[in-house]
Amino acid sequence: MSNTSAAGTRLGYLGPAGTFAEQALRSLDIARGAELVPHASVPTAIAAVRDGSVAAALIPIESSVEGSVPSTLDALASGEPLHIIDEVALSIRFVLAARPGVSLAEITLVAAHPHAEAQTREWIAEHLNGVSVIPALSNADAAKSLADGQGAHDAAVTNTLAASYYGLNVLADDIGDEEEATTRFVLVARPSTLPEPTGADRTSLMLFMRADHPGALLEILTEFAVRGVNLTRIESRPTRRALGDYFFSIDCEGHVDDARVAETLKGLHRICARVVFLGSYPRHDGREAHIRPGTTDADFDAAATWFAAIKGIAGTQS
Amino acid sequence: MSNTSAAGTRLGYLGPAGTFAEQALRSLDIARGAELVPHASVPTAIAAVRDGSVAAALIPIESSVEGSVPSTLDALASGEPLHIIDEVALSIRFVLAARPGVSLAEITLVAAHPHAEAQTREWIAEHLNGVSVIPALSNADAAKSLADGQGAHDAAVTNTLAASYYGLNVLADDIGDEEEATTRFVLVARPSTLPEPTGADRTSLMLFMRADHPGALLEILTEFAVRGVNLTRIESRPTRRALGDYFFSIDCEGHVDDARVAETLKGLHRICARVVFLGSYPRHDGREAHIRPGTTDADFDAAATWFAAIKGIAGTQS
Amino acid sequence: MSNTSAAGTRLGYLGPAGTFAEQALRSLDIARGAELVPHASVPTAIAAVRDGSVAAALIPIESSVEGSVPSTLDALASGEPLHIIDEVALSIRFVLAARPGVSLAEITLVAAHPHAEAQTREWIAEHLNGVSVIPALSNADAAKSLADGQGAHDAAVTNTLAASYYGLNVLADDIGDEEEATTRFVLVARPSTLPEPTGADRTSLMLFMRADHPGALLEILTEFAVRGVNLTRIESRPTRRALGDYFFSIDCEGHVDDARVAETLKGLHRICARVVFLGSYPRHDGREAHIRPGTTDADFDAAATWFAAIKGIAGTQS
Amino acid sequence: MSNTSAAGTRLGYLGPAGTFAEQALRSLDIARGAELVPHASVPTAIAAVRDGSVAAALIPIESSVEGSVPSTLDALASGEPLHIIDEVALSIRFVLAARPGVSLAEITLVAAHPHAEAQTREWIAEHLNGVSVIPALSNADAAKSLADGQGAHDAAVTNTLAASYYGLNVLADDIGDEEEATTRFVLVARPSTLPEPTGADRTSLMLFMRADHPGALLEILTEFAVRGVNLTRIESRPTRRALGDYFFSIDCEGHVDDARVAETLKGLHRICARVVFLGSYPRHDGREAHIRPGTTDADFDAAATWFAAIKGIAGTQS
Repeated sequence: MSNTSAAGTRLGYLGPAGTFAEQALRSLDIARGAELVPHASVPTAIAAVRDGSVAAALIPIESSVEGSVPSTLDALASGEPLHIIDEVALSIRFVLAARPGVSLAEITLVAAHPHAEAQTREWIAEHLNGVSVIPALSNADAAKSLADGQGAHDAAVTNTLAASYYGLNVLADDIGDEEEATTRFVLVARPSTLPEPTGADRTSLMLFMRADHPGALLEILTEFAVRGVNLTRIESRPTRRALGDYFFSIDCEGHVDDARVAETLKGLHRICARVVFLGSYPRHDGREAHIRPGTTDADFDAAATWFAAIKGIAGTQS
Repeated sequence: MSNTSAAGTRLGYLGPAGTFAEQALRSLDIARGAELVPHASVPTAIAAVRDGSVAAALIPIESSVEGSVPSTLDALASGEPLHIIDEVALSIRFVLAARPGVSLAEITLVAAHPHAEAQTREWIAEHLNGVSVIPALSNADAAKSLADGQGAHDAAVTNTLAASYYGLNVLADDIGDEEEATTRFVLVARPSTLPEPTGADRTSLMLFMRADHPGALLEILTEFAVRGVNLTRIESRPTRRALGDYFFSIDCEGHVDDARVAETLKGLHRICARVVFLGSYPRHDGREAHIRPGTTDADFDAAATWFAAIKGIAGTQS
Repeated sequence: MSNTSAAGTRLGYLGPAGTFAEQALRSLDIARGAELVPHASVPTAIAAVRDGSVAAALIPIESSVEGSVPSTLDALASGEPLHIIDEVALSIRFVLAARPGVSLAEITLVAAHPHAEAQTREWIAEHLNGVSVIPALSNADAAKSLADGQGAHDAAVTNTLAASYYGLNVLADDIGDEEEATTRFVLVARPSTLPEPTGADRTSLMLFMRADHPGALLEILTEFAVRGVNLTRIESRPTRRALGDYFFSIDCEGHVDDARVAETLKGLHRICARVVFLGSYPRHDGREAHIRPGTTDADFDAAATWFAAIKGIAGTQS
Repeated sequence: MSNTSAAGTRLGYLGPAGTFAEQALRSLDIARGAELVPHASVPTAIAAVRDGSVAAALIPIESSVEGSVPSTLDALASGEPLHIIDEVALSIRFVLAARPGVSLAEITLVAAHPHAEAQTREWIAEHLNGVSVIPALSNADAAKSLADGQGAHDAAVTNTLAASYYGLNVLADDIGDEEEATTRFVLVARPSTLPEPTGADRTSLMLFMRADHPGALLEILTEFAVRGVNLTRIESRPTRRALGDYFFSIDCEGHVDDARVAETLKGLHRICARVVFLGSYPRHDGREAHIRPGTTDADFDAAATWFAAIKGIAGTQS
């Protein structure tokens, strides 16, 4: 599944053409030579992976500004299990685009996805004083509808890929108000060989509680802490049964091939109603796991050897 | 702030007219005799509370199906502190509405907010086989645009209030796929007298970590656990500084007038970079706090009396 | 090692002849047909086990009145490892004994081991008002020296076995002030086949910290707690390096053949400088281990099967 | 109670004259000008404090070699509460003493307290090869009985004070096998003004559990840990009710005038059946408490101020 795809491999992404997801997918080696297929929503992209019509799909999972992407978490939490096999973090750079020949001074109405509007509000207030903003369904859609002549807007908050894709001019680049808006995308596929451990890996899980008892989350976190496994993300999501009934979407450092992660997962399996394993894969930032003394594979091996000796010595005599 | 409002009191809600938020607000005593003001978004509703143009505003905070409402959490986490002074949980009942004279068989295109679409997908597939669904900006907007003749749709997934408000016919009631979709709304106001403790209260907080060290969440949960304070909701939200940098939005049982909650909050203040107190208020469901032995106010009083005696006895002699 | 001993088997105990330890040893099946050998002290009894001059030795480990027996803990903590293979709890019944022909009214001076004196002080004050008590080296020695005519005492606080052994008359039986003084004795042997698990077992350990850091004990207890293993005794003992430098002598429920105990021991091995395993053996009281949901062997097996599937499914495809 | 005692002040210690306890007591300023009164045992020394016949008494509480002194812990745990107001740590230096004119080569039988015998065994084996050792009741008693001509021994393992006191010659100095055997003594008095906090204090407690439930000790340790209070000693002692029923004797860093210690003690009072406060007093070694960020008095004050503001702001409006 790594490196360049064989000709004819189909890879999905959250569309339409020109989204940040497409931009992120194109940054992966696997995308070279592959056919890239846009999907209208995260659930449809995931459904295409499950039914085999694409080999894998790249979908956003969290943003440094917007937080987790609920539709991604919910789609991964139910249905046939999928594995995350890679991740990309993309710096989100918004541009203001218009049809060729239109200047900044002529703009009267801007289309923007609500998230994009929220992240460019200050820039727009300063540079397009008095101009109204109408909602678009996605960053790419703001560009597409402008190119198609649908709607009354004469400018779009979008990204460079979509602007180029739909033949628009970039009037202003990097118009986001936040310094470093970043979105993390994950590449999901049907379970197959897990990526090799690299020392800088992430493992993703969904944990469903046995019953909603106070202290359940504390128990879960203790299973990680006692084996020195650090969390990198925790998110609660409703189980859809009742208000106040949650499951937890958790990312932690390490790979299931690491002994401390393996024992943690088995510990979680014992206390949770259900554990959904969503894969172990290399981190986009290459940051190595912090390993507390006593939790290396060598420490686990030494403990196993010692324990065998306790029981083995016993066995050799009578 | 309780009971019927004085004439002329203005109360905001997440609009437009006819939303579930309006329906929820009308269920509160405070709404009687008040002027109800719709706002286009959660941030604008909250801004109106902060600038005093409304006395309070009702906004959604979490849904049993969709989870937390990020815009509400983020708007409460920054800016001038506000307090939640009441909450309402509303059973979300979707209806299919059309203009008068249009029958179910004539429908060709349905407008629905994406969340509503997700929650009525099975019903639509069964009863409107082959009919397309286009996205609307809100449940009320789907109704409003249908009444106004904007857009190509001839039916709307909405609620009874909006259908009635915009003069539409309800063709089918209670079309949600989930049994019990519920949304919890909170009434936010500028800090004033806290609601009296009732024994069935909730306290809401935003907690910012001092530094992103592994185990920070475990420390936080331990501050609650050691004083027997149960969490009812925990949600991580990005601080917008970088991927992986979060704050926590937490609801717990009890009132700041309860000694165990008071000591917990002070403990959190000592280990967090910042604690935003968002109020103590009666739970919508009247469920009394579970109080672990040793954590009643009487237990705290007895401990304080004992401790004073230790130091007092010492003081009486020399 | 169980059941009746072969002829010629030598078993040690804390002497001299007539001690409670001898009384306890005689209650075990293993003592039938064996030669019972008194030792002057716990260290010499243990040395005799280590050098093979006795097959096993019975020594006191804790008393419900006096607490742990330091010399036993210290002798087990250092030197060649030994295993506890059985335990006995003996109700400690003190008697007042005198030479034949001496009546209670004639007594003027009583010999008693300081522990025995402490436990019979009220009885003596009431029944032998004004009579002095001098210290003896052991309960049996009080009787022996009286029989031998050594010392000025004319009565001894001792036990029935010693009284009978040294030809004394029991003037008063069961003279202890506490209702239920009990001493637990352990039978130690060189490592060999571990006793089979019975469902009502105890496992004994000595734990040496890696460094004296605050929280080390909390970490140790968490290793037990996270796997649902209950402690039945914890005692700190000095390492003899410096004041404030301790090791912990710990008994817990369960057997190393229980998965939850096995994982706990391996976890302890990873965080401790040294773990001394002192055996798994049936409890004298037959009280079954309390097993928390999620910690049965079946739960561990199910977790292992699930975990293998996660990695195995991955392995079957490519 | 500090500095030189008024003339006529009586101070008790664990006797007889010449013990390490007397040597330790003489190292305190309070002993100057006071009448020093030996007591035959720890319980009688403590009884003398309780009945006012001495103003305070110095008794051993733990040894770096022997561990805690059970009779001290038990005597402090029951009866009228006493406070520890000072502590001394004494390097235990054993000497071999004989009557004037007796040389090392002439010695045939040595008297030694069993603890002393254990700590000088190697020296005796090397320098007095083949010489027997008989037990004495205390280090001072070994010297006294030699001087009095009681018993068959012609040498005593004792200390320099006792040797000098009873007119003996020191034949060999510093004959202990361990490098640094140290005993800690505490000065106990009836509750009065607590010693002032110095920044390098210790607080002593006895904790009785509400019921013997698994995890009780973990709960206790968590009360300390959550407020950053480090333990310096923990010892379990039997309650004398039944085997396996313990109380805990605990020393921690800090003074009850420290906010973190105060809150910890109140927390313990809420979860324990009984908390016996045994005083806050300066450490003999002057080692300052390690204070975790967030647990200084200033942090507690800041939290209290913040909390008052939350409730106060609310109170200023309506």
